[in-house]
Amino acid sequence: MSVITIVGAGMMGSAMAIPAADNGHSVRLVGTPLDREIISRLKEDGYHLTLKRNMPEGVLFFYAEEMGELLDDTDLLIGGVSSFGVDWFADNVAAVIPEELPVLSVTKGLAADGERLISFPDYIRRRTGRQTLSLNAVGGPCISFELADRHHTAVAFCGDSMETLEKIKKMLETEYYHIKPTTDVIGVETAVAMKNAYALGVSLAIGMAERKNGEGCPEEYNPEAGLFYQSVKEMLKLIRLNGGDGDIAALGAGDLYVTVFGGRTRRIGTLLGRGLTYAQAREVLDGVTLESVAISAVVSDVLRELEKKGAASTEDFPLLMHIDSIIRGGAEVQIPWKAFVD
Amino acid sequence: MSVITIVGAGMMGSAMAIPAADNGHSVRLVGTPLDREIISRLKEDGYHLTLKRNMPEGVLFFYAEEMGELLDDTDLLIGGVSSFGVDWFADNVAAVIPEELPVLSVTKGLAADGERLISFPDYIRRRTGRQTLSLNAVGGPCISFELADRHHTAVAFCGDSMETLEKIKKMLETEYYHIKPTTDVIGVETAVAMKNAYALGVSLAIGMAERKNGEGCPEEYNPEAGLFYQSVKEMLKLIRLNGGDGDIAALGAGDLYVTVFGGRTRRIGTLLGRGLTYAQAREVLDGVTLESVAISAVVSDVLRELEKKGAASTEDFPLLMHIDSIIRGGAEVQIPWKAFVD
Repeated sequence: MSVITIVGAGMMGSAMAIPAADNGHSVRLVGTPLDREIISRLKEDGYHLTLKRNMPEGVLFFYAEEMGELLDDTDLLIGGVSSFGVDWFADNVAAVIPEELPVLSVTKGLAADGERLISFPDYIRRRTGRQTLSLNAVGGPCISFELADRHHTAVAFCGDSMETLEKIKKMLETEYYHIKPTTDVIGVETAVAMKNAYALGVSLAIGMAERKNGEGCPEEYNPEAGLFYQSVKEMLKLIRLNGGDGDIAALGAGDLYVTVFGGRTRRIGTLLGRGLTYAQAREVLDGVTLESVAISAVVSDVLRELEKKGAASTEDFPLLMHIDSIIRGGAEVQIPWKAFVD
Repeated sequence: MSVITIVGAGMMGSAMAIPAADNGHSVRLVGTPLDREIISRLKEDGYHLTLKRNMPEGVLFFYAEEMGELLDDTDLLIGGVSSFGVDWFADNVAAVIPEELPVLSVTKGLAADGERLISFPDYIRRRTGRQTLSLNAVGGPCISFELADRHHTAVAFCGDSMETLEKIKKMLETEYYHIKPTTDVIGVETAVAMKNAYALGVSLAIGMAERKNGEGCPEEYNPEAGLFYQSVKEMLKLIRLNGGDGDIAALGAGDLYVTVFGGRTRRIGTLLGRGLTYAQAREVLDGVTLESVAISAVVSDVLRELEKKGAASTEDFPLLMHIDSIIRGGAEVQIPWKAFVD
């Protein structure tokens, strides 16, 4: 058995403790400075405040400042921060871990490197200057609390070395947690990042139906599915544009499916679809910043830059550009259906 | 304006009358011999018994035996039969229409030609011996009654001639009906046919959750999404195997999304997921024969034949083979999760 240290006590990072503990590993969950309250309660009675579940027996809990020596005897480090915590993770964790310690990150997103979109593993390597770190990532359809409840979950682990991926897979796969290893890092990371933006896009149709028929009306599946079709089409193009294998869009489609049914992205898409401006929708959602919003901004900016150089065409991404114009341009929702089929 | 004749008064064929009528065309709806009751009621007061809507003013209704001369001054023939009616359509309609009359078919499915899967347009050409007929088809995410209610709907029209497709598109596109023309006939037809089988596959997870937690329990989205991911992966492989462009899997993903939420395929998948045998599930569903069942049988048989010749591997399609073994082999539902990620 191995020692697995999870840094970041958000819902997804914390949920990874369940398959890890089920496989008999020694598991430690370390909060970031933002997770103080969560860790405090976990230390008290093992109850996780945001995951809303008791953590398995035997998992140990630590504040960020207690992390230091924990990393030295760790066999696998799981990075559990959101995309907004990547810089913190790079500077405070990736910068100081032993060279040979493999990292598996649950962070979803892409970073802009001037005119290119790069994966977070790449971003962290550049930021830390540690080019040989083994930075791997999880992608695919997974709602954290369903993983915590041991529902069947199929995901991809991506990284540069198939050998390392197989080793990590062996540590974490269970009867309910199914892992596809792949070296297509940018493909997986693009799919995983974009599904947040596109889940917002599909959810617009929920709000549009409510605007027409009243809140709580039955959903209209043709418009949702039309947006789903367009989303997968754009995702596929973006995966290829970033240098990944288009076939990984299948993973993105599964991830999009699960995201449309989960949480805040569906909620904000619905509010925007109802006709609220982004500012109004944010107010309803209590000012929370969403990964879906961040990613559509980053990617559409890069696409515009690439277009100037003739290396991409924003016309290939009418849904994404419309999402960006709703969010940052204050535009009204007006799905560019004709552009989808032109 | 043109004369559009729809043959087959099922839900999808009949729903096509709405965009056709909205564009000012002269529309006739002709029933097959199985549609007597529907046509009888339509002639009475214009109410469609299965679509459960009043048809637009001006649409004319005919019994099968009244079809004869209607075809002579028709500009576009819409084939509205299900896959079980293809032979009837070929023998009684396609065999006798004027050579130059373009056909647009809503039929979903694939036919087996010995060891190959072929599209229904191809099948009809062979059966009638009329190789130069203009046989085009509709594919993509569309629930018939939502189209009838003029919800935004994005589909593909496929056929051999882009010029003809553009002409048909112009006749039928409306502010809510969005049409992508493509010459990838086998790609579209494979996606469209397979989504029925795979929607059954995804729906298994609904029944599996109910078996565990009781009927009417909340859905478990990780397993559904895992099956969705695998479905799109297999769909993509099958599209390529049949000679289509893998990218059309995006259309299939949208179609799968809408089919998971609609009607009988979801219902039978749920029943099977609960643990009923296929025979028991059919009893609950009143013996109705489903396209999802027909297509998984046809395709898995062809895959086994191809495998014998080394031209395909059934291991690439673990979900489809499992669906077939549940339906025809009486096997218990036991999702081959590990095969999905191996």
